[in-house]
Amino acid sequence: MGLDSEVMPHIDMANIACGFHGGDPDVIARTLALAGEHKVTIGAHPSYPDQQGFGRRSMVLSSQELQNSLHYQIAALEGMAKVQGLTLSYVKPHGALYNDMMNDDAILHTVMQAVSSYPSTLKLMILATQQSSKHRQQAKSLNLELLLEAFADRQYTATGQLVSRKLSGSVHDKTALIDQVSQLLTSNSVTTRCNKKLVLNADSLCVHGDNEASIALIQDIKALIVATQT
Amino acid sequence: MGLDSEVMPHIDMANIACGFHGGDPDVIARTLALAGEHKVTIGAHPSYPDQQGFGRRSMVLSSQELQNSLHYQIAALEGMAKVQGLTLSYVKPHGALYNDMMNDDAILHTVMQAVSSYPSTLKLMILATQQSSKHRQQAKSLNLELLLEAFADRQYTATGQLVSRKLSGSVHDKTALIDQVSQLLTSNSVTTRCNKKLVLNADSLCVHGDNEASIALIQDIKALIVATQT
Amino acid sequence: MGLDSEVMPHIDMANIACGFHGGDPDVIARTLALAGEHKVTIGAHPSYPDQQGFGRRSMVLSSQELQNSLHYQIAALEGMAKVQGLTLSYVKPHGALYNDMMNDDAILHTVMQAVSSYPSTLKLMILATQQSSKHRQQAKSLNLELLLEAFADRQYTATGQLVSRKLSGSVHDKTALIDQVSQLLTSNSVTTRCNKKLVLNADSLCVHGDNEASIALIQDIKALIVATQT
Amino acid sequence: MGLDSEVMPHIDMANIACGFHGGDPDVIARTLALAGEHKVTIGAHPSYPDQQGFGRRSMVLSSQELQNSLHYQIAALEGMAKVQGLTLSYVKPHGALYNDMMNDDAILHTVMQAVSSYPSTLKLMILATQQSSKHRQQAKSLNLELLLEAFADRQYTATGQLVSRKLSGSVHDKTALIDQVSQLLTSNSVTTRCNKKLVLNADSLCVHGDNEASIALIQDIKALIVATQT
Repeated sequence: MGLDSEVMPHIDMANIACGFHGGDPDVIARTLALAGEHKVTIGAHPSYPDQQGFGRRSMVLSSQELQNSLHYQIAALEGMAKVQGLTLSYVKPHGALYNDMMNDDAILHTVMQAVSSYPSTLKLMILATQQSSKHRQQAKSLNLELLLEAFADRQYTATGQLVSRKLSGSVHDKTALIDQVSQLLTSNSVTTRCNKKLVLNADSLCVHGDNEASIALIQDIKALIVATQT
Repeated sequence: MGLDSEVMPHIDMANIACGFHGGDPDVIARTLALAGEHKVTIGAHPSYPDQQGFGRRSMVLSSQELQNSLHYQIAALEGMAKVQGLTLSYVKPHGALYNDMMNDDAILHTVMQAVSSYPSTLKLMILATQQSSKHRQQAKSLNLELLLEAFADRQYTATGQLVSRKLSGSVHDKTALIDQVSQLLTSNSVTTRCNKKLVLNADSLCVHGDNEASIALIQDIKALIVATQT
Repeated sequence: MGLDSEVMPHIDMANIACGFHGGDPDVIARTLALAGEHKVTIGAHPSYPDQQGFGRRSMVLSSQELQNSLHYQIAALEGMAKVQGLTLSYVKPHGALYNDMMNDDAILHTVMQAVSSYPSTLKLMILATQQSSKHRQQAKSLNLELLLEAFADRQYTATGQLVSRKLSGSVHDKTALIDQVSQLLTSNSVTTRCNKKLVLNADSLCVHGDNEASIALIQDIKALIVATQT
Repeated sequence: MGLDSEVMPHIDMANIACGFHGGDPDVIARTLALAGEHKVTIGAHPSYPDQQGFGRRSMVLSSQELQNSLHYQIAALEGMAKVQGLTLSYVKPHGALYNDMMNDDAILHTVMQAVSSYPSTLKLMILATQQSSKHRQQAKSLNLELLLEAFADRQYTATGQLVSRKLSGSVHDKTALIDQVSQLLTSNSVTTRCNKKLVLNADSLCVHGDNEASIALIQDIKALIVATQT
């Protein structure tokens, strides 16, 4: 939380943890207030119910359990946003749930169903991959709109998945990160672990803001985006 | 949960735990489905964040912390209700929070503020006491409507508070419970621990449905209500 | 908990939840007191950290995470037992962790390491299967003693695993249960789902005591054991 | 946790959270390993069960509930220490529980009973105040040894309690902190909020190590202690 106030001025969209891997009613209220102050678009960041593991460990939930869990988390965040006059725009699963849905079509389908059956109209943010057009079709059949994101700091596999954090080189250093962002901005592509160019059609760029160094980086990235767009 | 399916057909309003002292997304979803099936009015039953103690232990929260906690819990339940096409009607605090708000005006005021500032119009259910008209005025100034409830199975003090569960005689046996319900139905009053008649203006009657005996009792009470109303 | 006082007089060993799927310090203290009163041998019943799912959902923990989790849970229970002058005898994983270790040698090895590296000498209770002699050898190399258990109420696969609870017929009715217990007592074998006789070398018989019917059954089983042993 | 590795080399005793307000099995295992590496004396740092509030909010537990909670937490930490060949030396309650026991004799008595009835011999760390000799007597009657601590960074009331964190000036800046430590080292006293000299007989000095600035301060304090002792 300590750095949220420094990050918030530089981002356009904030994923807010809903209390199942991080966050609690007080943290959520403060984060929403900051997002509101800086006119940042708000996304719910639900996860497996795993506070001990910060949502980074896979859990085997039935489709119904996963939908109930997502509805509960999205609802809690959406209601707290409304209390502050803010509107929830999208849902982006966190941690192991994010990875699992990108690696298992059944889980992705359950996540899509959960967001689609939620009474407010929300977009679902997932990873931009080679399968994005298939994913868009699946979403469309559920009357659901996707947001496709690329990662600034993560290395990609040949098929457009993120390289596991456990492998060396999977998280970019500053230079590699800036290179990847530049390539995304200019050619909507990344260079994979195996040195292949991979085209992604990303709507959004994911950065992390959890340490001092990342604040400076976010400012650099923002400047790069502004420079590219003009 | 085991008995909810037996209780639900006999009640008009169900207080549903929101996950902070009992309940979890799956339990909430099942309970809401039952309530929907039997056309039972739904109330959120938020509590202190105390799963180990089932919300029965007082906690000292700041006014802001308590409001955030109530907003989170109410929002989670309301959203899950909406997923099933159901509408949340009221909020009734649980356990120690219920007792604390009835014994401390500042806490009651915070609870009123939390329900009043929540974006949907919800009533607040509190205990019918000698101070009910004052409470109605306080609520009115926050644009909040109260539901006043009487307890079927709990003995009352001279000032209309519930006698502490720790004292013998505080929870009525079957005969005393039926007597108290009859008196409430015919004269809107109870006989206190000190044998005084106390007039209450209750809108609602609270019963517990957590064991086999209570199911039979609820049926008896329902019959009594029907008989009195005709 | 409600039925523990009725079950405890009829059993020889009690698996006590350690707070990660059920139980909390108060429940543990009361259960230990009951076990002590009836001279019942005490086992720690650790699980994945999943209170919402009662430990019934698989989680992907690293070997180190799982060992840390088991050490924490075993230690908490052992210390609370010592406070009451009681000695912890064994460890039996609960729910999804139990199933996972019986289906994945790496997880079983991690569980064995955790119990073996714990500073008190504790046995590990696992399922008696066709692989029990291999398991005994693995345990021996870690200086660990196993307890092998058979289930009274669960149907077995051809390879001696439990049939998934999700399949019909997986949990025996009263007649099938009594038949299975009789067969275990007389020939140390069970009849599998595919109607094959399977020899098990079980040290212990697992029964559940979570409803009224099960109390009567436990008494029947106990009578059967006494009758067989004389 | 991030700074534990920088703090640990400079301290003599480490209070380790037991999982009820902070910490979890993995954090505990890593912190114990660090403490072991630097030969730091280990204390259990139990709290009210309040992870959302980081143990900073008072809870009303019965004496039995509080003792069970303390036994569970102490046992979990002690067992995990033993796994690493380390010995637990003392118990220091955290946050609201620490404040409550210093302000309410009944709670302090319960805490003393809990530590005294725990099967291993552990000291109890409490605040050095004007009532320390009475506290020592109470502890002695329970066969319990106390450790009395003074705070480096907190202002004192006239009666030797800590000034509430909510009041301005309650937490010392660097200069005031160094002054207070010097005074404690040379005359075993502090200067209270009302500018009175108050003699404390402290055995231990409490510092916090949760930010970069505090690391430098801890080094300064350590140098001051070494200089004073020679």
